[in-house]
Order: sequence, then structure tokens, then C-alpha cells
Amino acid sequence: INGAVLTIPMAIEESSVVAAASNAAKFWSTKGGFTATILGTEKVGQVHFMYCGDSQKLHQFFEQYKTALLASTDEITHNMRSRGGGITALSLVDKSDAITDYYQLDVRFETQDAMGANFINSCLEQLATQLKTLAAKHPDFSEKEKAIEVVMSILSNYVPNCMVEAAVSCPVNVLLPTVEDSKLFAEKFVQAVRIAEVEPFRAVTHNKGIMNGIDAVVMASGNDFRAVAAGIHAHAAASGQYRSLSKAEIKDDVFKFSLRVPLAIGTVGGLTKLHPLVRWCHELMGTPNAQELMQIVAVAGLAQNFAAVKSLVTTGIQQGHMKMHLLNILNQHQATESEKKAAIAHFKDNTVSHHTVADLLAKLRNT
Amino acid sequence: INGAVLTIPMAIEESSVVAAASNAAKFWSTKGGFTATILGTEKVGQVHFMYCGDSQKLHQFFEQYKTALLASTDEITHNMRSRGGGITALSLVDKSDAITDYYQLDVRFETQDAMGANFINSCLEQLATQLKTLAAKHPDFSEKEKAIEVVMSILSNYVPNCMVEAAVSCPVNVLLPTVEDSKLFAEKFVQAVRIAEVEPFRAVTHNKGIMNGIDAVVMASGNDFRAVAAGIHAHAAASGQYRSLSKAEIKDDVFKFSLRVPLAIGTVGGLTKLHPLVRWCHELMGTPNAQELMQIVAVAGLAQNFAAVKSLVTTGIQQGHMKMHLLNILNQHQATESEKKAAIAHFKDNTVSHHTVADLLAKLRNT
Repeated sequence: INGAVLTIPMAIEESSVVAAASNAAKFWSTKGGFTATILGTEKVGQVHFMYCGDSQKLHQFFEQYKTALLASTDEITHNMRSRGGGITALSLVDKSDAITDYYQLDVRFETQDAMGANFINSCLEQLATQLKTLAAKHPDFSEKEKAIEVVMSILSNYVPNCMVEAAVSCPVNVLLPTVEDSKLFAEKFVQAVRIAEVEPFRAVTHNKGIMNGIDAVVMASGNDFRAVAAGIHAHAAASGQYRSLSKAEIKDDVFKFSLRVPLAIGTVGGLTKLHPLVRWCHELMGTPNAQELMQIVAVAGLAQNFAAVKSLVTTGIQQGHMKMHLLNILNQHQATESEKKAAIAHFKDNTVSHHTVADLLAKLRNT
Repeated sequence: INGAVLTIPMAIEESSVVAAASNAAKFWSTKGGFTATILGTEKVGQVHFMYCGDSQKLHQFFEQYKTALLASTDEITHNMRSRGGGITALSLVDKSDAITDYYQLDVRFETQDAMGANFINSCLEQLATQLKTLAAKHPDFSEKEKAIEVVMSILSNYVPNCMVEAAVSCPVNVLLPTVEDSKLFAEKFVQAVRIAEVEPFRAVTHNKGIMNGIDAVVMASGNDFRAVAAGIHAHAAASGQYRSLSKAEIKDDVFKFSLRVPLAIGTVGGLTKLHPLVRWCHELMGTPNAQELMQIVAVAGLAQNFAAVKSLVTTGIQQGHMKMHLLNILNQHQATESEKKAAIAHFKDNTVSHHTVADLLAKLRNT
């Protein structure tokens, strides 16, 4: 990744995911490797509230007390500010067109190497308390306007400005051993990604493959994979149709494959120091900071996607998958070592299914 | 769930998720419990292919060979058919408006108690092979038309007809100890869910909370949480805007809270028998079949969402969360038992942050 060789831990129940990622890493290791770029690190939180009254007066109130609102979080933000983070923006958003009387305090954060959920939620709850206190004694407000009702104060896991891009690229001709195969492969690969852009039924599974890589590293690093997945899938649907997260193109005889995902993850706080295996995983990766971990996670997603689409457009997904699955089925049938050997040889040219494996074992056991 | 008392295993790194689900289970145990209903169990797969020629001729070809295509999967579907499953529908879809020459074989499956990924992919790859073979020798096709190019054959993790609904409901008046509190709570709860319907930044986090419950049970049951999450989040965005998966309403003084999610999961195959803890989890749940597991998972999601929204609209999310987090921070600072006791007492009325906990410990250690 960006010229460095890294070992990436993956926590996942599906053995073929690790095999596929390793396959893609090997493939690209001789073709320039992966690049990764941080496009932003902004986190988001909101105080959702109801204000029944003159919108203009609320805006004036907000401008007047914006500094006081921010100052009320000083104790909570103390440590984060000393590390260069904190609240970076605070604005009032009028959402009363969506729901009558509905407004937000929209708050943006820089949380450095922390994912920041606890920090953000603590800030938001403090802002909400201060908002209600200040409104209750604001002389320009009527009694109704003073009675601001805070519905909830909570971070958002949708972080479109906390984004990382991972990419691979190489001349089309060197993709496979022969020039002819390389061209066909590149075209078919681009076609497959294009299908995942236009067809939601395919896009979901395409992105699921990306998440195989992303979630496995997110989990190994002690981060919250539900938060990451929710933000990424919402990003995939941001255009109004659920689409592929990755893009592939051939331009001037160069093949380029890339992925952009929003990722709010941390390398301090939460489980990162508490769970012994998580701590070990961070050491395995060279103790990355949050931005480096974002890059590693995005690359794992792109590698996974590359391996999956490569399999799909060449041998089909089942050949590699079933080779692994065969061993699982054999174990389920308590196959002996010699039965396993015989089965692996047999299924080089035959279709693996629970049925065909059971049949073969029955035959082996009857001779 | 539907009158039965169940113990639900959850595999997750976030202790407050288990606490929240337990809290919701206790809350509803005296108010009628949870109901869950299966709305469909249809799985989906597609052969994506390119056909350069007369669309009309392709449709005729498909009608002529539909039976032969299906028959070619007989060996693969043998076991599944004996269990009452198999291929339930096969159709040709013209997607050439999206991409020139792009068509699909759209295949629908019933996979009984299996999630079915391997089964579906094996069927699709067989259908793709047969499609190419039959097209290559179809007398009405030109040479170009005979050369159908299969781009990929793969199941879809987007399963809008494999859906389960979970719900809770009770008279508004009994929600909290007093009638007045109950009414206010119900209204604020409905308002919070409504916000998650109209505001994507909130919807993502709202649904993330649902996935805290869903993923934890999906993982404990040895199913693929990436597949489940991708399908569910795509469903949340199916209207063109990312929205809340759950709905809340007050009607005739009855509070109702419900959730619909697509869920393709299994109780046989994959890891379900191979992983000893997964097997144990299935036994803990009373060895459910796939439809029962769908209900359990959906209920875990709804319970989680109820607890999170309840916290958000009453005490705020941080109070409960930080109580648990406090112990994590104390452990990080190698606090002794007596320091822990003092800290728990102190933080009953004070804000928990890494900073304030460190301060308190420093004070305690200097006296």
C-alpha cells in the first residue's frame, strides 16, 4: 500500500475471503501494488429538536449564542483539542419542510485517531442541554418558543466527508500472461463492474464482496462494523439508486480499478487497547494511525472485490469456493485422510455438492 | 416471540448492545411480547450475459429451451428438491436499455433451511454453461447471435421477497408507570422514528442500531452478516432515499412499533454444523429452522432499535453507554477494586470522559 508491504489481519468465518484477498495481494504485488488516499476525515453529529415559532428568531438566537453553545463543551473537548481535534463546525439546519417545527444543530468534528462515537455523543448531549437552557431564558422568545423540545442527540454513521480512495492500475497488456487474454479479461472485468453500476440486484452482491474485505479488517482492528457498513451502503445508494462502490475503466491502454468508501474508524479508544487480539492485530499492521487504518481497510475491500470479479468473469466463483467448501463437507461426513485425498482428486473434474460428495463417500466406504 | 420464551445468543464486541436488547426483551415481556411473521422466502440469482442480435429471436430461443435449461440442473438440485426446494422460476430479462446487448437469466429459488449460496451459484453456473451450449447450436441464430458471452453467474444478496416482519404493540397508557409519561414517551418515540424516515443522516444510525441486534444473532448463528447487511441496507434505500427500516405509530391509543427486513439465512449447511459454538447457539435457540431463525433475528433487530430510541428520547444514549464504558476506561488505567467503587459513585452525577476519569484516578492516587 503506497509502496509499503503490510500484513493485514482479517477476522471472518468465510475461509475463501482470506484466500481471495491474498490472491489479489499477490496479483498486484508485481504490478505496482495498491495506492490509497485520504479524501477527508470529518465526522458528523446532530441535535434533533422541535421549535414551535418564528424561524427568523431562532436563527438570530443561534447566531447570538453559537459561541456560548460551543464553550459549554470545553470540558468534554479538552483532551481532544490537545490532540488537534474537536468541534470544527456548528450550524442550525431548518428541516421544517420535512416535519413541522423540526430543526437540527448540525455539528462537525475532527476526532484524530479516535472513531469518536462517545466523544461526539457527549458533546451533542451537552449542546442539547445548553440549547434548552439558553432558549428557556432568551428574552426575545415567546413561552412557546422557549420550550424547545430536544428529540435526540446522536452522532451520524453517515460520513460522506470522511472518505478514503483505494486504487490499482497497470497497462492492460500485463494483466495476464498473454496480451490477447489480458485484453479480453480487462474488457470483461470493466463490463462486470458496469453491470454492478446499473443493476441493483448485482450491485448489492458486488458491494457485499467489498464488505467481505472491509468488515474483516474493521473487526480485526476492534472497530464497529455495523457503523461502517451502514455508512458505506448508504453512500452506495446516495445517487437515488443502489450502485457499485467500485469503478473500473480502460483508458489509453491502462486498466484502472478503484473504490471510494466513507470510513469512520479509530486506532485509539474503544476496544483497540482492551482486547488482546485486537491489540496484536494493530501491532501486526505496524500500529497504524486512523488515516493509515482507513487506507488499509479500503485496500482490503478493493482487493476482495478484484479477486471476486476476477473469479466471476473467468473460472466462475464456485471453482475456488467449492474447493474450500469440499473440505468442509468432507469434515462434516467425518472423512478420513485417505477419503479426503480421493475426494480432492475426484472433484478436480466433477461438480461439488453435498449430494455428490455423499455419493462418492458412500462408494468409497462400500469398496 | 409469538408466545414462546427464547434465549437468543449474540456475538458482538459492544457490551451495551446485549444490555439494550435484554432491556427491551424485559420491557415487552410484560406487554404481550414480540410477534414475527414470514412474508416470503424467495431467493434470487442471475446469469448476466451479452447477446448481440435480434432480441425477438432470443426470446423465442428461451421459450423453446427453458425446460432443457432447467433439466440441466437436475443433478445439482436433486437433494434440494427432495427437501421441497429447488428452482421456482426462470425468466429472460432484457436489460439492453441499461447496457447495450445486456440480458439476464433471472432465477428464483426456494432453498428451505439452507441460506443456499453454494446451491444457487452451482445452479447458475450450470444454467450459464447450458445457455452457451444451446445457443451455439441453435439453427435460427446467426454466428454473432450464437456467440453469447456470459459475463458472470451469481446469486443476489438483494432478496426483497425473502422478508420477515417483527412487531410489538400495546395500549399507549401502559408504556410507562404513569399515563402522562406514557403519552409523552409514545409521541416522542414516534417523532424520533419519523425523523429517521425523512433524514438520511439519522436513518443510517437508526438502522445501524437495528443491525447491532441483527448482525449479532446472524453471526452467533454462523450466517454471513455481510450478505444480510448489504441486502437490508439496499432495502432501506429502495424508495430512492435511504430511510428507517422500522415504523412507529399511535392509532386508537395503541402504540405499534414494527420492522420489515429481507433476510436470506440458513440453519443447515455452511458453518451451522461445523463450528462448535455456532452449533451450541442453535441448540440454545431451540434448534430453529430457517424461518424461525429469520423471526428471531428480526426480533433482535427490533428489540435493539426499541432500546436505542427509548434511551435517545429519554435519558440520552450516553448515560447507559458511559456506565459500561466507565468500567472499560477504569480497566485501561488498571484501577483497583476500591478505585472502581469510588469512580462508579463519583460518576453517578458527573460526566464520564477519558479526561475526567484520569483526573479522578490521579486525585484518588495522590491522597
